[in-house]
Amino acid sequence: MELKNHYIYTRTRFVEITKPLKTEDFSVQPKEFVSPIKWHLAHTTWFFEQFVLCVYKDNYRTYNEDFSYLFNSYYNNAGDKVIRPNRGLMTRPTVEEIHDYRNYVDNHIIEVLESTVGAEVLNTIALGIQHEQQHQELFYYDIKYILGNQPTFPSFKTDLQLHAIEGTEKFIKIDEGLYEVGHKGEDFCFDCELGDHKIYLNQYQISDQLVINADYINFIETGGYEDFNLWHAEGWDFIQNNQIKAPMYWHNVDGNWHYYTYDGLEIIRPNLPVMHTSFYEASAFAAWRDMRLPTEFEWEVASRKLNYGQLWEWTNSAFLPYPNFQKVDGALGEYNGKFMVNQMVLRGSSIATSQGHSRPTYRNFFHPHMRWMFSGIRLVK
Amino acid sequence: MELKNHYIYTRTRFVEITKPLKTEDFSVQPKEFVSPIKWHLAHTTWFFEQFVLCVYKDNYRTYNEDFSYLFNSYYNNAGDKVIRPNRGLMTRPTVEEIHDYRNYVDNHIIEVLESTVGAEVLNTIALGIQHEQQHQELFYYDIKYILGNQPTFPSFKTDLQLHAIEGTEKFIKIDEGLYEVGHKGEDFCFDCELGDHKIYLNQYQISDQLVINADYINFIETGGYEDFNLWHAEGWDFIQNNQIKAPMYWHNVDGNWHYYTYDGLEIIRPNLPVMHTSFYEASAFAAWRDMRLPTEFEWEVASRKLNYGQLWEWTNSAFLPYPNFQKVDGALGEYNGKFMVNQMVLRGSSIATSQGHSRPTYRNFFHPHMRWMFSGIRLVK
Amino acid sequence: MELKNHYIYTRTRFVEITKPLKTEDFSVQPKEFVSPIKWHLAHTTWFFEQFVLCVYKDNYRTYNEDFSYLFNSYYNNAGDKVIRPNRGLMTRPTVEEIHDYRNYVDNHIIEVLESTVGAEVLNTIALGIQHEQQHQELFYYDIKYILGNQPTFPSFKTDLQLHAIEGTEKFIKIDEGLYEVGHKGEDFCFDCELGDHKIYLNQYQISDQLVINADYINFIETGGYEDFNLWHAEGWDFIQNNQIKAPMYWHNVDGNWHYYTYDGLEIIRPNLPVMHTSFYEASAFAAWRDMRLPTEFEWEVASRKLNYGQLWEWTNSAFLPYPNFQKVDGALGEYNGKFMVNQMVLRGSSIATSQGHSRPTYRNFFHPHMRWMFSGIRLVK
Amino acid sequence: MELKNHYIYTRTRFVEITKPLKTEDFSVQPKEFVSPIKWHLAHTTWFFEQFVLCVYKDNYRTYNEDFSYLFNSYYNNAGDKVIRPNRGLMTRPTVEEIHDYRNYVDNHIIEVLESTVGAEVLNTIALGIQHEQQHQELFYYDIKYILGNQPTFPSFKTDLQLHAIEGTEKFIKIDEGLYEVGHKGEDFCFDCELGDHKIYLNQYQISDQLVINADYINFIETGGYEDFNLWHAEGWDFIQNNQIKAPMYWHNVDGNWHYYTYDGLEIIRPNLPVMHTSFYEASAFAAWRDMRLPTEFEWEVASRKLNYGQLWEWTNSAFLPYPNFQKVDGALGEYNGKFMVNQMVLRGSSIATSQGHSRPTYRNFFHPHMRWMFSGIRLVK
Repeated sequence: MELKNHYIYTRTRFVEITKPLKTEDFSVQPKEFVSPIKWHLAHTTWFFEQFVLCVYKDNYRTYNEDFSYLFNSYYNNAGDKVIRPNRGLMTRPTVEEIHDYRNYVDNHIIEVLESTVGAEVLNTIALGIQHEQQHQELFYYDIKYILGNQPTFPSFKTDLQLHAIEGTEKFIKIDEGLYEVGHKGEDFCFDCELGDHKIYLNQYQISDQLVINADYINFIETGGYEDFNLWHAEGWDFIQNNQIKAPMYWHNVDGNWHYYTYDGLEIIRPNLPVMHTSFYEASAFAAWRDMRLPTEFEWEVASRKLNYGQLWEWTNSAFLPYPNFQKVDGALGEYNGKFMVNQMVLRGSSIATSQGHSRPTYRNFFHPHMRWMFSGIRLVK
Repeated sequence: MELKNHYIYTRTRFVEITKPLKTEDFSVQPKEFVSPIKWHLAHTTWFFEQFVLCVYKDNYRTYNEDFSYLFNSYYNNAGDKVIRPNRGLMTRPTVEEIHDYRNYVDNHIIEVLESTVGAEVLNTIALGIQHEQQHQELFYYDIKYILGNQPTFPSFKTDLQLHAIEGTEKFIKIDEGLYEVGHKGEDFCFDCELGDHKIYLNQYQISDQLVINADYINFIETGGYEDFNLWHAEGWDFIQNNQIKAPMYWHNVDGNWHYYTYDGLEIIRPNLPVMHTSFYEASAFAAWRDMRLPTEFEWEVASRKLNYGQLWEWTNSAFLPYPNFQKVDGALGEYNGKFMVNQMVLRGSSIATSQGHSRPTYRNFFHPHMRWMFSGIRLVK
Repeated sequence: MELKNHYIYTRTRFVEITKPLKTEDFSVQPKEFVSPIKWHLAHTTWFFEQFVLCVYKDNYRTYNEDFSYLFNSYYNNAGDKVIRPNRGLMTRPTVEEIHDYRNYVDNHIIEVLESTVGAEVLNTIALGIQHEQQHQELFYYDIKYILGNQPTFPSFKTDLQLHAIEGTEKFIKIDEGLYEVGHKGEDFCFDCELGDHKIYLNQYQISDQLVINADYINFIETGGYEDFNLWHAEGWDFIQNNQIKAPMYWHNVDGNWHYYTYDGLEIIRPNLPVMHTSFYEASAFAAWRDMRLPTEFEWEVASRKLNYGQLWEWTNSAFLPYPNFQKVDGALGEYNGKFMVNQMVLRGSSIATSQGHSRPTYRNFFHPHMRWMFSGIRLVK
Repeated sequence: MELKNHYIYTRTRFVEITKPLKTEDFSVQPKEFVSPIKWHLAHTTWFFEQFVLCVYKDNYRTYNEDFSYLFNSYYNNAGDKVIRPNRGLMTRPTVEEIHDYRNYVDNHIIEVLESTVGAEVLNTIALGIQHEQQHQELFYYDIKYILGNQPTFPSFKTDLQLHAIEGTEKFIKIDEGLYEVGHKGEDFCFDCELGDHKIYLNQYQISDQLVINADYINFIETGGYEDFNLWHAEGWDFIQNNQIKAPMYWHNVDGNWHYYTYDGLEIIRPNLPVMHTSFYEASAFAAWRDMRLPTEFEWEVASRKLNYGQLWEWTNSAFLPYPNFQKVDGALGEYNGKFMVNQMVLRGSSIATSQGHSRPTYRNFFHPHMRWMFSGIRLVK
């Protein structure tokens, strides 16, 4: 898609997908890792204002000076910011004002796109679109958390739909050898994917399917959450301290497993891929099956043979720099590099990922105890 | 006022005073001691539904069964409840639905009031009105906290207005002797005021004025917050641990003391009574003046000679039962008795108190570290 | 007893009663409210050094300059101090060094006592003796906590012995009227007892016995810890959050109640007075009996008719200043006044109290959730 | 060394190196990650009792049944255990009793070693020796923490001595290519080192020296701790939240950097390698030098050319399983595998490591914020 259209499409879509919500749904922040919906709408706008308009547009007048402080996320180079757990305390600006802000910035960006500008501007706008797509996916996670943790389990209209997994699981054999991984070529990618390089893999076999709910229920019911031998020590502490006995959003109602979906509380469908497990649970499940999770390189090398895209897939790789990784100068250098510790890589994409956003070399990452994102499990032996 | 009119007046007023707010302002809960505004609107309604309609109205159909769970505050006898720190996570029901709920219950209560009913029903409705008045005052505290802790200091239109204190402070001398305190007669009062009884007071002198901002600034600027000899040990810890150097809502901007008011951030007016101090700060201020706070009985005995009603006045009395205090049976017995530990009594009333709500025997109470309510300081020597 | 003998007796006794301990027992601090045993031995010594020798003895050379920092407790006026939760991290000075320190200070104090000195010195030494007696009682609480919370329940040899309570409970009636309370006369007392004054009491009846274990087991077994109507709101939270279902040191072993005593884990003796309850539990027990706890003045007025001294008795009075209470200047003014908030008064004395240490006007005080001291329950109706 | 001699030597050494301590030093636990010294002495003994004597010795009578509960560390398969933060509350058993326990177990193990036994027993004893060596190194870390955090900075006599680093730093160039890593052959190694396998490295240059104190002081004084661009996001939070401005044990006394060593508080020697930095600090230092930390494989491949052994060297590799890693069955399977998340690998060895304990393939690991171990920094470019 041409950049201007891509910009308009992406920006419009965010407003569209939030339309079924009530005004009240936009402001709360039930946990530190969840951001208020209106914050997402404003922060993605701030990104374009801060890194494009303020830098490249002559005589640009900031929409509101406070917003720079209110809607910065984690860019220390871009000045002070509201600390993360306080995002949900801001009832102002209202949702309506934030829509005004979006329109204001959109008009200016479109002006920029319609004028003659250099590659740097275009690259930054392209990055801003990717950034907004990431927040659209976070929006899906966050609104599920916001609604799914209310006593009344309100529903929310979306197009997202998981597909049932049919047929018997098969394992694809990959030969021992030297492989190339990492992003090559001119297309957009994030800094953490760059630097294609060689890695050597021993032979392995990777499943052609994601783990499904039926199997996970089996894991639960045969005592998977009670057998410490299956767990990392910190995973075991995590499930003990938080009294976790099932994936996030699962509720056992009178002996039957239900889960919260965007349609409300429903009985679990056995053939859908299991989602909302932490890395700890994914690892324990794999151990219970006497298998393991793939490394991110095993996943990448096999990716052409895999049918993926329903859920991000936990790997057993820590998010670390590739050889020759270089941090960009300035605030945009804070995009990925500073998170390269204590997080695990997920590969693939999910039904909440924007079309065209992902790639086989894409490295998503979360802390091993996180569960609110659309994560799934694929096994290797 | 006749009960029906009083009911209608009180219920209507709550909706009126919240009108200047934006929808977004109704749902957040920045601290555990603050409740969302829409929760106040619903909870006071639930009180009438639960204790009047469900008990006394034949064939009453509950508006929504979930609401009993959602809007119970602390009445363990009335079933399960949403735990306090989670009140701010409920984006649903919306403000509009809560207004429907209010209308529904109002229609039913008015039906009850227009029919022939016994004294017990009327007493419970009268209690419900007092209860709603208390929550209207809490609303004023909570909305100030919600708006006053946002980086943009939004304003909020109210009629509340403190009056300047002019003239020199004088001390009223009260003679040693035996006095009667506590509530007598047939008028409404809370259970904790009942049981008039004798107390013996030594001679004392009580100020005819509240402490004003000018004096409090003097206390701050001569090192009151740095001299541990003025403070209770727990007060000293409290200000150290929370880095408190001034009353709540005070900000030192370039060397000048400002505070947040409903009109936004303003320069402090020296002749207004100081408000938003904790008991610890009130006590330390008194010690700095070489005086002390009154006991609640010293206050009550002197009350006829006092000009009060701007701010609740800290006393040095703990909230404890009067001789012969009796807990009512059932949920309404939870109203006051179970809070009779670790709290200090405040006497008088404030500009946020509903007209006619208070009495000279009225015992308000808060924990000694609380500051978001409309508290003031009166000295005794 | 003559002061010098009293000094020697008190100081010697502390070393005597700690003799059955192992060196390892002297240094740990399992909770913030417990102090290491060797800290008690050093801190009481520091009190004499700091407030007597450093002030009144010419050319006195401090034993070790570090000790002033290490063994100050809460006297802000006496300089910096090790914060309370870190007391248990100091393995040095060793127990042996602390005994040297005690001997060094003892020799100097005895020199002072054998010389001609003024009343002020003697009064401070007398206060130091009272202070050391208080820490000897705290020692008994702390060593019980230190040993009683180890998996092996080690025993500890003491002379302390509770006596069984026989016969039927009777209630002593006290007439309504005006009474005098507080300390009069020349004998030693703490500042918080001073200022005898009049109080007016309604008629009441007070039990001639402490509540015994058999009755408390009955309270437990008929659901006392599950019925929120019996509890203060904060008491209910306290027992829920800490999963408290019995007094401190009680363990249900195969259906039989045991408790830790200085002799190790033992089956509970039904006729002994129940000890180690919090104020919350004492209040809930009284509510279950449809009675209440006495106020401190009800207790004091009745005290001549009571057989007390086994356990400190919870009252329903907050620890607050008497009329005309005056704080002494300087560090010794920190003794009691700064604790006059959030604590409840206990009256009487316990088997761990030094002989002659207590009086009918003595006001002991603890936070309402504390349980490791020797507290008991007496009822009023 | 023959196994019996190795056993006796190792066991005797632990008692020897703790001899300079006072009895009081053996029981405290200032932080959860520090264990009491007597716990180390007992736990290493319990390891031999539990995994050798209880399994392989006929008619073996456990020394004390409680000890199994008291001195288990993290082996869930070996039954209940005292939770980690409570280790420091156990004043009993005394140090003397633990020495008896050691002697008792030693006599039995020597009997086993003098009889005819199978390879499995011998392997487990060999593992026990390695385990005891690890705890001897932990002892050095823990006693430094215990003494170094006391206000009096007591000294402790050891043979450990860092050597000054002289001469200019040089960088050793390693060629791009395929390398073999991991442990081969019959010698002892831990399960996590097994499975030699191929890895592909890009060209890199590795320093022939550890970073020295002089350079680190330069980093501090040019603002290294204030420039967020040098830090991981979690590292930045870590130093902010804990107000860290220098390595552990460093104190700025009147403008001069001192540190605690076993000889007490000393002025920092500029040519010694810097120790006691976290991974976060090591990474930030490397970023400040425009370099990076080596991966564990870069370190291993270069190791033959390195002069190492003073301090464990942080790598930028997460502690993850090698291809074909297999967990042993039973309790000993808990040795390493369950820690393979959230920790970073350190390579080499330190002056506190037992002779012969380490290897070029040895994988030590700690959480990235830990600092009390003997960690150092080596750079790569």
